[in-house]
Amino acid sequence: MEPNGESEVRVVIVGGGFAGLNAALVLGKSNRKDLRIQIIDRRNHHLFQPLLYQVATAGLSPADISTPIRRALRKCRNVQPMLGEVQAIDAESKRLVTSCGDLQYDYLILACGATHSYFGNNQWEERAPGLKTIEQATEIRRRILLAFERAEVETDPDKRKALMTFVVVGGGPTGVELAGALGEISRFTLSQDFRNVDPSRTRIILIEGGDRILKSFDAELSEVATRKLEELGVTVWTSMRVTEIDDDGVFMGEERLNAATVLWAAGIHASPLNTDLDGELDRMGRIKVQSDLSLAAHPEVFVVGDQAHALIAPDNPAPPLAPAAIQMGRAAARNILRDLQSQARQPFAYLDKGMMATIGRAAAIVQFRGQRMSGLLAWLAWCFVHILYLISFRNKALVLAQWMWSYFRFGRGARLITQREWRFMQQDTGRK
Amino acid sequence: MEPNGESEVRVVIVGGGFAGLNAALVLGKSNRKDLRIQIIDRRNHHLFQPLLYQVATAGLSPADISTPIRRALRKCRNVQPMLGEVQAIDAESKRLVTSCGDLQYDYLILACGATHSYFGNNQWEERAPGLKTIEQATEIRRRILLAFERAEVETDPDKRKALMTFVVVGGGPTGVELAGALGEISRFTLSQDFRNVDPSRTRIILIEGGDRILKSFDAELSEVATRKLEELGVTVWTSMRVTEIDDDGVFMGEERLNAATVLWAAGIHASPLNTDLDGELDRMGRIKVQSDLSLAAHPEVFVVGDQAHALIAPDNPAPPLAPAAIQMGRAAARNILRDLQSQARQPFAYLDKGMMATIGRAAAIVQFRGQRMSGLLAWLAWCFVHILYLISFRNKALVLAQWMWSYFRFGRGARLITQREWRFMQQDTGRK
Repeated sequence: MEPNGESEVRVVIVGGGFAGLNAALVLGKSNRKDLRIQIIDRRNHHLFQPLLYQVATAGLSPADISTPIRRALRKCRNVQPMLGEVQAIDAESKRLVTSCGDLQYDYLILACGATHSYFGNNQWEERAPGLKTIEQATEIRRRILLAFERAEVETDPDKRKALMTFVVVGGGPTGVELAGALGEISRFTLSQDFRNVDPSRTRIILIEGGDRILKSFDAELSEVATRKLEELGVTVWTSMRVTEIDDDGVFMGEERLNAATVLWAAGIHASPLNTDLDGELDRMGRIKVQSDLSLAAHPEVFVVGDQAHALIAPDNPAPPLAPAAIQMGRAAARNILRDLQSQARQPFAYLDKGMMATIGRAAAIVQFRGQRMSGLLAWLAWCFVHILYLISFRNKALVLAQWMWSYFRFGRGARLITQREWRFMQQDTGRK
Repeated sequence: MEPNGESEVRVVIVGGGFAGLNAALVLGKSNRKDLRIQIIDRRNHHLFQPLLYQVATAGLSPADISTPIRRALRKCRNVQPMLGEVQAIDAESKRLVTSCGDLQYDYLILACGATHSYFGNNQWEERAPGLKTIEQATEIRRRILLAFERAEVETDPDKRKALMTFVVVGGGPTGVELAGALGEISRFTLSQDFRNVDPSRTRIILIEGGDRILKSFDAELSEVATRKLEELGVTVWTSMRVTEIDDDGVFMGEERLNAATVLWAAGIHASPLNTDLDGELDRMGRIKVQSDLSLAAHPEVFVVGDQAHALIAPDNPAPPLAPAAIQMGRAAARNILRDLQSQARQPFAYLDKGMMATIGRAAAIVQFRGQRMSGLLAWLAWCFVHILYLISFRNKALVLAQWMWSYFRFGRGARLITQREWRFMQQDTGRK
């Protein structure tokens, strides 16, 4: 496909996550003077989502795992980052309707990611928040810490038991990491700090619908993870489905569990912007793309990251992991550059970088091209990969070093309960 | 005063700021088995307020300057920290009405501090937030960063000018530090990151009602601070009074200034709990205490910190500074211990630790018992004192080192715009 007749080619990227940011970096560093690139996101920051559970469990501060998108792209002078929301896509007239006005494009890269899905029960969200944004992470942190505080002054033993019960729904990596961190906080970090409650008596229940947790890993590693979680005081219930969530806790069919805190990590669904596009959606709402990551009906529109269903083998789409998103973002950007140089586009080739999940201090599981690893060595590998990534974005080495250190010493640096409201009238002089 | 006939003496401390926390530490470390100490606060964390302006201006994360009150008191086994709100004080029956139920006391230490005052114009708060809590600091950070983002996509030159205008009302240390940090952010940190706006063209106006800023310092240091602010691009207007704040900006009598961001640092008022007490209030709502920091009508009730009007010389109350609050908290606790040992109470003796204010990188002013200092040396003294304090509370040395380093390199690590709401339904799929 040829660029339009004008001297300037306009590329709009929607989303500043792993896929979108890496697409912008490839295009920005190409130094082509004829490119005008805009990247729009609802947030001003790129978020390192794999460590978001650490914010939710008071190990890291939000800023430790975020970088302003502007900052990451400051050297790409032909890229304009914009804070705003895309309201609609008009692919026929190559136009986006956004909160910053209409944006015209020659090429569009959609990298809006996914959010969690309540499988049609969106009313559960208030009771069982998911973990995709900084705000959700600090809300989860608030609920976890508040539950312990309330238990400390609760005199009714049943209510106290419910306050000390934490249910995590969903046994994927996020659910496992949340449950493991909860186990550690209650066993080690908080154990000295309370007078009336014994945080080591916390009940943490991880509920998984399938027959084992961490389905995307080998069965053997699932088993290792389950045992490790049990050592941290987490009860793993498989083949159980949550059928209702109410003010007091969760139902699983006839069974009922009273819990003050319920966290949701059970499913994701791609961005609803996909419904504006001409293409087939899969079960998770991802749109099916061609081998070059563009849409069949609109070769100037690329969809990448968790928003896309891109086959890497027959019947096998790219996994919803950061490395896949990074690779897809770069691949789409390179195909645009090939177009401009009148070269043929290349199909997306996925390089498997493996999968890892951590289950508390000094324990993790790693799976890499058929190899399996667990225990301390896997945890060190996990640390290495995560620190490396964060350093590549900003000079956060010291923060991370500090975190690893306190993590090792069972400290939690960010045990902050912040309120939902900022005004002092209600908060600071809020007397009856 | 003798303790009551029972074997246990109940002390309740309200507030976990500098005064309350230090009172709890003195009582907790006394190792008296007959003491039962409860400390209640609306927040779970002690906040290092002198660095709060750094959170508001994206230099530090909230957790960097906060410590859970529980954590600070974990070794004091006879102290029970409680998260809750005091609704009323019944001094006659020695009883507090709180959100955790009623608390009976033999001794009461009130250390509820102060909040900002709009001098009867509370409706201004939505437009001009003050800076006393973490939530207010992140709200101010959100507004500052959002103003630049909006200016970047604004096409109307008048609106863009208003977006690039920041008004700080009040020329005390908080106002000066906020204005100075704003000057630095716009001149150095953000200057490379925008494409359409030039952050170094930001207008920052510091409005002070009196004839000079930093009234509590010597006139000579005020002058140094004013010049330093001007170097950072801050315009200082003295003898000006804000008479109205509306959606577009501020009025000063007939004059009008259009500004999207208005910050309030103009006055403080002591906790309204003082009105429940039998005693005389001063102009700032502080209650007048005796030389031993107790109330004349209720010698078992001590009032300390910013909530108290404690004379340190004729007509000269203790200043609203952290060192004074720390000393008052400790003095009240020691007088309780003296009561229990049947010793005479001691009058509060204030040890002047000086005052300091920082105006941007490598510049500060220090005043210490008649001595004056400014410039780089004063700034190093400022760093030293603040790091020392934070280290004494937690192993935050590394975080602080990292901060000083990036501060020196014009970086801002916490440039995060977070939303007011955490739910994803409105935020993450919030399409029309």
